[in-house]
Amino acid sequence: MPRVSEAHLAARREQIIEAATRCFLRNGFHQTSMQDVIKEAGLSVGAFYRYFDSKAALITAIASEKISVVRETADSLLRREPAPPLLTVLDDLLRQIDVNLTDEGTIRIAVQVWGEAVHDPELAAFVADVYSRIRLSATDLARRAQQTGELPAGVDATAIGSAIFGLIQGYILQRVLIGRVDRETYLTGVGALLGAGAAHRPPAGAVGSG
Amino acid sequence: MPRVSEAHLAARREQIIEAATRCFLRNGFHQTSMQDVIKEAGLSVGAFYRYFDSKAALITAIASEKISVVRETADSLLRREPAPPLLTVLDDLLRQIDVNLTDEGTIRIAVQVWGEAVHDPELAAFVADVYSRIRLSATDLARRAQQTGELPAGVDATAIGSAIFGLIQGYILQRVLIGRVDRETYLTGVGALLGAGAAHRPPAGAVGSG
Repeated sequence: MPRVSEAHLAARREQIIEAATRCFLRNGFHQTSMQDVIKEAGLSVGAFYRYFDSKAALITAIASEKISVVRETADSLLRREPAPPLLTVLDDLLRQIDVNLTDEGTIRIAVQVWGEAVHDPELAAFVADVYSRIRLSATDLARRAQQTGELPAGVDATAIGSAIFGLIQGYILQRVLIGRVDRETYLTGVGALLGAGAAHRPPAGAVGSG
Repeated sequence: MPRVSEAHLAARREQIIEAATRCFLRNGFHQTSMQDVIKEAGLSVGAFYRYFDSKAALITAIASEKISVVRETADSLLRREPAPPLLTVLDDLLRQIDVNLTDEGTIRIAVQVWGEAVHDPELAAFVADVYSRIRLSATDLARRAQQTGELPAGVDATAIGSAIFGLIQGYILQRVLIGRVDRETYLTGVGALLGAGAAHRPPAGAVGSG
């Protein structure tokens, strides 16, 4: 058997992952067979099984690769120093989501992975770990927004981080499942929620002027 | 062939849907065969196929039944007159989600349905329709919160409704995928976002007092 370089192995693995992603986006996890992926990747059965021995292994590998990219991007946007205003950070994140909605399907694969995680404990543990870490970055953002006075001090930053992370996830789901919400509209809505505390108060300095 | 009553047909159908839900929660859509569902339902093959001729039909029927219940509950909570404060409405909605997380699995099936909708156009159209309507209810809630002065007037209510709906979806995803956020914590975070507009402003009346 010829010696195979690390680079060759990695390239082959990547070739399979890309082929499987195309198959899964076209027909979903359960209507895609290993044969479909092998054919799409243009490999022999023997070559294929040196890399992945089950569909579950393939799904986990795809999830791992795609979500890692998402996590790195999200972290770099959430952890910038000094922290830009909340709406600016969210705008950048939502732009990134829009890009990933139209590219090779990272976000649409993610939604399929969420469905799989419901009944696959190994995948569930992986997904929980990655999303916990992204939420920690959101918590960090909340903490810094408290320091700059943009968010109320004295509130559990973890709680605010969860709500911010929820807004991001909600945008993803609405884009994937309903389609019709654009980034600007969504951010307008978030901005109105952020302005709520001021809505029924007179502007500072206006007291007694009316 | 004996005449079969409407009630009997409906009961059988329900029996199959419940059996399929148990199977799908246990093993997911793609690792559950029609044979598995037939066995779980305790029916003959012939009897079963009078109701559902494919797994896709079964998934759509489950989605239809579960999501309709969710929509009715969400609508009734979102459309109450007069509208309670936003955080009260969200508290009620999140309580309902918590119940559906621990019952026969409505929410966990929903997350699996989202994954399916990515590549099944018929299911996608159905899901888009239902969620659009829930989002309309959230928009209606936003509009009434604008009328009471709880949210800033003059902002597109659809935009605010999308953000509120996003917060609800984000809670569901974090509960299902990460587990560790409780209702009180999440609402504390949302409350802090709603209070953000006031965070860096002096309280009304405090101008010039410092």
